Amino acid sequence: MEDQLQAQWNDFAVLLAKMSGYREAIGLLHWDLRTGAPRKGAEVRAKTIGMLSGEHFKLETSPEMGRFTELFSQPEANAQLSAAQRKIVEDCRKEYERSQSISPEKYEEYAVLAAHSETMWESAKAENDFASFEPYLSKIVAFKQEFIDSWGVKGTRYDTLLDMYEPDLTVAKLDEIFGKLRSRLVPLAEKIAASPHQPDAAFLEGEFPSDRQEEFGLFLLKQMGYDFEAGRLDESVHPFATGLNPGDVRITTNYVLDNVTSSLFSCLHEGGHALYEQNISKDLVGTPLAQGASMGIHESQSRLWENMIGRSRAFWQRYYNDLQSRFPDKFANVDMEDFYRAINRVENSLIRIDADELTYNLHIIIRYEIEKLIFNEGLQVKDLPEVWNAKYKEYLGVVPPTDSLGVLQDVHWSGGDFGYFASYSLGNMYAAQFLNTLRKELPEFDSLVASGNLLPIKEWLTEAIYRYGMSETPSQIIERVTGEPLNPDYLADYLEQKYTDIYHLDDH
Amino acid sequence: MEDQLQAQWNDFAVLLAKMSGYREAIGLLHWDLRTGAPRKGAEVRAKTIGMLSGEHFKLETSPEMGRFTELFSQPEANAQLSAAQRKIVEDCRKEYERSQSISPEKYEEYAVLAAHSETMWESAKAENDFASFEPYLSKIVAFKQEFIDSWGVKGTRYDTLLDMYEPDLTVAKLDEIFGKLRSRLVPLAEKIAASPHQPDAAFLEGEFPSDRQEEFGLFLLKQMGYDFEAGRLDESVHPFATGLNPGDVRITTNYVLDNVTSSLFSCLHEGGHALYEQNISKDLVGTPLAQGASMGIHESQSRLWENMIGRSRAFWQRYYNDLQSRFPDKFANVDMEDFYRAINRVENSLIRIDADELTYNLHIIIRYEIEKLIFNEGLQVKDLPEVWNAKYKEYLGVVPPTDSLGVLQDVHWSGGDFGYFASYSLGNMYAAQFLNTLRKELPEFDSLVASGNLLPIKEWLTEAIYRYGMSETPSQIIERVTGEPLNPDYLADYLEQKYTDIYHLDDH
Repeated sequence: MEDQLQAQWNDFAVLLAKMSGYREAIGLLHWDLRTGAPRKGAEVRAKTIGMLSGEHFKLETSPEMGRFTELFSQPEANAQLSAAQRKIVEDCRKEYERSQSISPEKYEEYAVLAAHSETMWESAKAENDFASFEPYLSKIVAFKQEFIDSWGVKGTRYDTLLDMYEPDLTVAKLDEIFGKLRSRLVPLAEKIAASPHQPDAAFLEGEFPSDRQEEFGLFLLKQMGYDFEAGRLDESVHPFATGLNPGDVRITTNYVLDNVTSSLFSCLHEGGHALYEQNISKDLVGTPLAQGASMGIHESQSRLWENMIGRSRAFWQRYYNDLQSRFPDKFANVDMEDFYRAINRVENSLIRIDADELTYNLHIIIRYEIEKLIFNEGLQVKDLPEVWNAKYKEYLGVVPPTDSLGVLQDVHWSGGDFGYFASYSLGNMYAAQFLNTLRKELPEFDSLVASGNLLPIKEWLTEAIYRYGMSETPSQIIERVTGEPLNPDYLADYLEQKYTDIYHLDDH
Repeated sequence: MEDQLQAQWNDFAVLLAKMSGYREAIGLLHWDLRTGAPRKGAEVRAKTIGMLSGEHFKLETSPEMGRFTELFSQPEANAQLSAAQRKIVEDCRKEYERSQSISPEKYEEYAVLAAHSETMWESAKAENDFASFEPYLSKIVAFKQEFIDSWGVKGTRYDTLLDMYEPDLTVAKLDEIFGKLRSRLVPLAEKIAASPHQPDAAFLEGEFPSDRQEEFGLFLLKQMGYDFEAGRLDESVHPFATGLNPGDVRITTNYVLDNVTSSLFSCLHEGGHALYEQNISKDLVGTPLAQGASMGIHESQSRLWENMIGRSRAFWQRYYNDLQSRFPDKFANVDMEDFYRAINRVENSLIRIDADELTYNLHIIIRYEIEKLIFNEGLQVKDLPEVWNAKYKEYLGVVPPTDSLGVLQDVHWSGGDFGYFASYSLGNMYAAQFLNTLRKELPEFDSLVASGNLLPIKEWLTEAIYRYGMSETPSQIIERVTGEPLNPDYLADYLEQKYTDIYHLDDH
């Protein structure tokens, strides 16, 4: 790079690092709110988060940002940048243009509301009181509607929200992908329901002291290579992972006394997110590329560790003894194979995060359709419980007895994350496609898992995906790693094979 | 206030609230670093703290701050302000003028260094390695020397640092106050050493599981009225209290397995600091007055709860049973009176935070004299361990066997807090003087403590001191509450009376 251009880049890097600093502070303030901050400080805390988010927003939309992204987008200058630098410029420019249309005051007001709204959601869920949460959620939706207008609508209004989480995704494409997936999963689900070989899962119930659940979660996280010198495990209402910087990637879980699998699989899930962020190249620290490529790619890693590894037979061949020894009165007389089948039973249930790998996608399609209704058809927030319950009856044949078990179950909407849910199913599809390649390149995959030798898998994923952070787009990653674009058949193949075995669907 | 002036004040209030927000974020980032943040994130974290401190500093020294403080200092405008508003203007102006002479870049550099230096101090203390810490501390001192030049020297160079923690305090005044105090305490210490009635404290040794220590600390904090909905208790290497906002005032402690009193009294101590900040008037939230009046007044509250209440006979008349029931194998056969005498034994020891109420002041005088040597006489950081050990030998007759037990024991210097230590002895003196008035106005004081009815005491302190926050200066507070200026005789009287009883100094 020419000296003068390099000097400009150095100044740009200072601006980027300052923005990273704000994100770290905001991330910690959020993490703290959700892991034990005193209630009486929450109101002032929300204002503080709002203020800092406003400052970050000001930098994102500052004249300097405009000048730098303009400068580095010019062909002559752009040609002198590395690929990573070009991606930074492109992403910052997109964000700059999107944000220009919203005033910092408006954005700060929104951030304060969103922080408040999360706290209100926590109480509303605890007390099964949708009415107390409704005014907050309505305001969040109103803000989002206003933002969509400001950002400009391409395709449908909802497309504008989807694009924030998964670049280039549209309602048209998603309708097609989900349609294809559904067309293969529905017959599979029917065959499963009709199978006489239903797993018994009664032994998964009972009392599981949370200290032992925690100890087992910590053990499994160490096994998968989660670095506790660059992270920590805490409790929160809704499990999450947050990367404050690549040397500080935290995860949380929620211990449910009568459900040992809930926390266990949330540890593997959030641990998968965290492995991704802990292994981003240190070269990217202080830049906007030091994060996951997209929500969908991020979710592919949590799902790969939670389901494709964590719910595999090989995994429990290695770790079932460890589980038994921690809960001997529960599992001493249960065969590993029965346990494996139980944690993979397919069931039409109420709670997304506890759903099996197959029906999980139906939970997502319900939310995807409701979000489309809100933003494309004007569905009102007050009508959400009714629509939610009707869709659950239609798609899954179950009706939530309370809103806490229904429309209030997820944190996402309270923080304004509309358009996010689709990423979960995309994550499943990306994960199955990555796994297909991983198995080809590491043919001993099953025996590695069965012997608890998980580090070569972590290393393969680091080389293929993690270290790049956000340097590539989701479609660049999936094509570079697997040689083809996203293809939902890999997930359908994987599920068919897995459940054919578990439910003996080949029996005649 | 005139409408136009009110409009200006409202704009000023927005600036002040933003500064409060930065302080809350910085406070949390610090708290987190010291209560369990992953090590590998510490380097980036230090930069983030530096960046935010730099932003706070920019506001403190901004043209707007200059304009507002200038405007509201003009007699016509000033006359329309409330007393609290006038204090805000005065404090902000003093800070503005002091800070004008330091560039934001310099200040940010210093803040990054200070955050780093605290982390280095932690390792150095753990590994008894002063050499690894020395370069950091030397740089901190060099910065402080430079800052003193920038701020301008009034009196001696060290006066400039003292003024930051206790307005109007000078080396001349402190030399006089400490001289007077010493002239009464030294003969008392000699009488105590010569007494044949030395308390036996052997039963304070042994093993005290930290979970039971924690449980007892939580119990006592609840008893004194610490509000757990506006705070939390965590562990850190060095105990501290931090008020993020009046609804979020956190404290930490450090459980020492073979010392039950260390954590116990640090809970009462930090709890005293926290009671102060939790009970600051909500009207002051978002302003710089929502904090303690000075380090000395703050310390008077931690010392009052830790020593004057927590080490009183009346307190243990009420709570000794509770301690016995938690550690029955240790205290079942120990009389309350013996326990009371043991926790009040006077001993020439190495560690300031574990020192008794009498010799504590000698620990402070050592640090005060060393700081004077550094800033007024050019003592080098590399020579600190030698000077430290020599002074301990001279004043307390003990020589630290390691630097961890000597010059590395305190966190303060690592974070640049030179001039702070004197506040601890000032705190003792203020506390004794407040207690004298408190006892007059609540004559049933001893029986309230002996019955565990501590809330009237907390309420008296709230009315007299806490609710004002920083609205008054230390000398205004002590004179309003006690009717006279700071007078070290109250502390000397209190200690003479207490130890005459415990050591039977009246026996002939």
